[in-house]
Amino acid sequence: MKLQQLAREHNLLSTSSAILGWDQETYMPEKAAAFRADQLALLSARAHELATSPAWAAALEEAEKITNSTAPTELAEITEARRLFDLATKLPTELVAEEAHTSALAKHAWQRARQENDFFYFAPHLEALVAIAKRKAELLGYRDEPYDALLSSCERGATTAAIGTLFDSLAQPIAQIAKIAVTHSTQNYVPLPAGPYPIAAQETLNAEIAASIGFDFHAGRIDATAHPFCTTLGPSDVRLTTRYLEDDFTSSLFSVLHEAGHGLYELGLPSHSPGMPSSFAVSLGIHESQSRLWENHIGRSLPFWEKWYPRTQELFPQLRHHSLADFLTHIRRAQYDFIRVESDEATYDLHILLRFHLERRIFRNELAIADLPTAWNDTFEQFFGIRPPNDAQGCLQDIHWSLGSFGYFPTYTLGNLNASQLMHAFTVLPEHERAVAQADYTTLLPWLRNNIHQHGSLLTPATLIHQATGQAPSSNYHLDYLKKRYNPL
Amino acid sequence: MKLQQLAREHNLLSTSSAILGWDQETYMPEKAAAFRADQLALLSARAHELATSPAWAAALEEAEKITNSTAPTELAEITEARRLFDLATKLPTELVAEEAHTSALAKHAWQRARQENDFFYFAPHLEALVAIAKRKAELLGYRDEPYDALLSSCERGATTAAIGTLFDSLAQPIAQIAKIAVTHSTQNYVPLPAGPYPIAAQETLNAEIAASIGFDFHAGRIDATAHPFCTTLGPSDVRLTTRYLEDDFTSSLFSVLHEAGHGLYELGLPSHSPGMPSSFAVSLGIHESQSRLWENHIGRSLPFWEKWYPRTQELFPQLRHHSLADFLTHIRRAQYDFIRVESDEATYDLHILLRFHLERRIFRNELAIADLPTAWNDTFEQFFGIRPPNDAQGCLQDIHWSLGSFGYFPTYTLGNLNASQLMHAFTVLPEHERAVAQADYTTLLPWLRNNIHQHGSLLTPATLIHQATGQAPSSNYHLDYLKKRYNPL
Repeated sequence: MKLQQLAREHNLLSTSSAILGWDQETYMPEKAAAFRADQLALLSARAHELATSPAWAAALEEAEKITNSTAPTELAEITEARRLFDLATKLPTELVAEEAHTSALAKHAWQRARQENDFFYFAPHLEALVAIAKRKAELLGYRDEPYDALLSSCERGATTAAIGTLFDSLAQPIAQIAKIAVTHSTQNYVPLPAGPYPIAAQETLNAEIAASIGFDFHAGRIDATAHPFCTTLGPSDVRLTTRYLEDDFTSSLFSVLHEAGHGLYELGLPSHSPGMPSSFAVSLGIHESQSRLWENHIGRSLPFWEKWYPRTQELFPQLRHHSLADFLTHIRRAQYDFIRVESDEATYDLHILLRFHLERRIFRNELAIADLPTAWNDTFEQFFGIRPPNDAQGCLQDIHWSLGSFGYFPTYTLGNLNASQLMHAFTVLPEHERAVAQADYTTLLPWLRNNIHQHGSLLTPATLIHQATGQAPSSNYHLDYLKKRYNPL
Repeated sequence: MKLQQLAREHNLLSTSSAILGWDQETYMPEKAAAFRADQLALLSARAHELATSPAWAAALEEAEKITNSTAPTELAEITEARRLFDLATKLPTELVAEEAHTSALAKHAWQRARQENDFFYFAPHLEALVAIAKRKAELLGYRDEPYDALLSSCERGATTAAIGTLFDSLAQPIAQIAKIAVTHSTQNYVPLPAGPYPIAAQETLNAEIAASIGFDFHAGRIDATAHPFCTTLGPSDVRLTTRYLEDDFTSSLFSVLHEAGHGLYELGLPSHSPGMPSSFAVSLGIHESQSRLWENHIGRSLPFWEKWYPRTQELFPQLRHHSLADFLTHIRRAQYDFIRVESDEATYDLHILLRFHLERRIFRNELAIADLPTAWNDTFEQFFGIRPPNDAQGCLQDIHWSLGSFGYFPTYTLGNLNASQLMHAFTVLPEHERAVAQADYTTLLPWLRNNIHQHGSLLTPATLIHQATGQAPSSNYHLDYLKKRYNPL
């Protein structure tokens, strides 16, 4: 089929681009930066050209004619390919270029604003980016309100109304759980014994653990970068990265578990038609469910550490007289922090609820950019009971808005909710519960492959969760999980 | 200028391809191999398409009109761009595809033939490749004989007649020098103390030495691969690789010096118009002159080791009671070996003369493929005084012919000749001679940049050497160098 051939070609280009991006973050010498940006821009342009080309349109029409009578997965493949093509061709090249240009300037202004703790350097840029996002929303189309368009381009099928209802119902119970967790953690915390935790030993432990949960080192690797990430360079080539702190090995380890969760999903996607919707992850909220599941539900569980703590003590002698119970207070520590990326399981979702609340108001024209700092601090105080001392630790902390990324943050909490719902559904079966209690994950990965990974993006996130768990997406499981995790008993 | 813009785009594509190739050899997980081949094929096809496109032809014509009255370097830029375009468009796509297909089969046959030591598995494939090369030669055009076309596509301006005269005059004196060198070396050789020479310490030494001769680690790096190479990923991004043997650190070190020589040339090329002829190395024979110069003339010299041996002894304690004189017998060891890639400075060129002698006869239809094994062994015996015991150690040892590479081998010896002539010209100035005697290379690299690197491919190899040394290319300097190096005094 011609469409498959073009999609494959597109995938070859976009994964080539991913190889350049991976090298840029891992091994590229610094003087190569400017030319690398041009190499990346060319490959992106060529890929975009192809995916919006008349040839693609013709191949799609041809496929639509042929597949009228074929299997449901093939139909879903074509339907989703059509939806993506229509989205891609809805935005004129000039708008995409204007956004890139505006956000390049905005990023610099944001950096300066954050550094000098002065929101007003950033404000006009943020206004320009919001205006562009509103124009994008009009072009992409939406049902109820412009923010729907932004949200659903990150999380297929998501609406402001549905996420609003969900998140509004979470705010109060999560704030309560967080409060109990922070109080309990403050009273019981035992610090990790002093480092150094040699990087070579961290690498050994991380690799053993990643392999034990099913990450295939013949189809991927782990390298070191400033910020951990996972990137897909081909159907059998997924690269994870992590960051090493010599005084706390758990930082690199939990990044590896998180990124390996993403990586296991990517390696579990169907590879029969690279570049077609079946070969792609369906959404950020589903992707994040996989990373959070392995990082938190597995990686911060007692059985996991009953299995791995002896090996960890072997690798790091300073832990030999440090009890497992004390160690657990470290990896389950709950604290109020002004900064999202430094927050923990108990408080993380509050940071997301805050951002969703503000984005929604901005795109409903209920909140002017000039009033953002105060609105941020007020809401923060309402959720956390403390007030950011300045904007650098308030509304200037994240890079996302300076990149024109709106509607993205909610997917983090969706990921948490999905992870909890999936783990609950999996452990409903007694033999599964027993396996997890014995730190045996040989049935968990096949279950995720079967219920999530193998579907690529042929089902919507909501349908995937419903089919996998027997229920519509719900926040109950995550609240239950958090309550149990932070039960002060 | 439109042509510069297209050339830049071509360079962005071809260097992107180089990034994929580098990753393939260094860090790529094994299951990624098949998809990586497809990614590389697509990028190559896109680059080739562009460089032979009607748009390119039009831009070239436009440039030729404009530049009639401009500076000589700009004229040279356009003239060379025209020559390359005409060459690229002379070969029909089908012939290129047929060659790729034939050589893919031939490579497998060659592997089996070498493994089973049976030339006749390989013979029909080699015949097919020679036939294709002959057709290529006819399409590319030549003055006197078909082999000219193959030779000059590796070494611009080289002719069979000229190389023949040069190499014929070398055979006897080099054989004589080799004989003396081998005899002397056999009598005086002192083995390197036993390993292990830890890889981390090798890396430290290699990096210090590479930096000391001017390799910029902000614009390049060194990694480990099965076979050492140098590849250019952008105007300020040159990657070297080496191979580590735990029982002999000099193996990785001399590979680094060799590849750094290539890398210094690449980093010294003009970067104002990436993809235009000024941005490219002119030929393999000039490239090899840069690698051999740093590897042999500098890296095997007494002053170099008077400077570096104390540091080397510090890194490898087993050398502390091993004298510098004894160490030199190791890095200057001369031996007769059947295998080219394991041979040394004294015998290397004999391996090349042998291959040129046979290739020339094949393309003159004076030697049938069926008679190649005997011809190889006869000539080998004539040059080395020993006869290969089998074809695996004879005419089946190199991969090159199975790839359809004919006319390539001579550039290795041209590199040696050029290196010796350049070093002689440089050290004619007493202050240069003094600097080299003190292992101070701060004037050598600028001299090479000025005389060789900065010209890109705007001058022919012969003109470059003539301008740099004041004389036409000659073999005398290399013979003098070898005589001096292997003087049994």
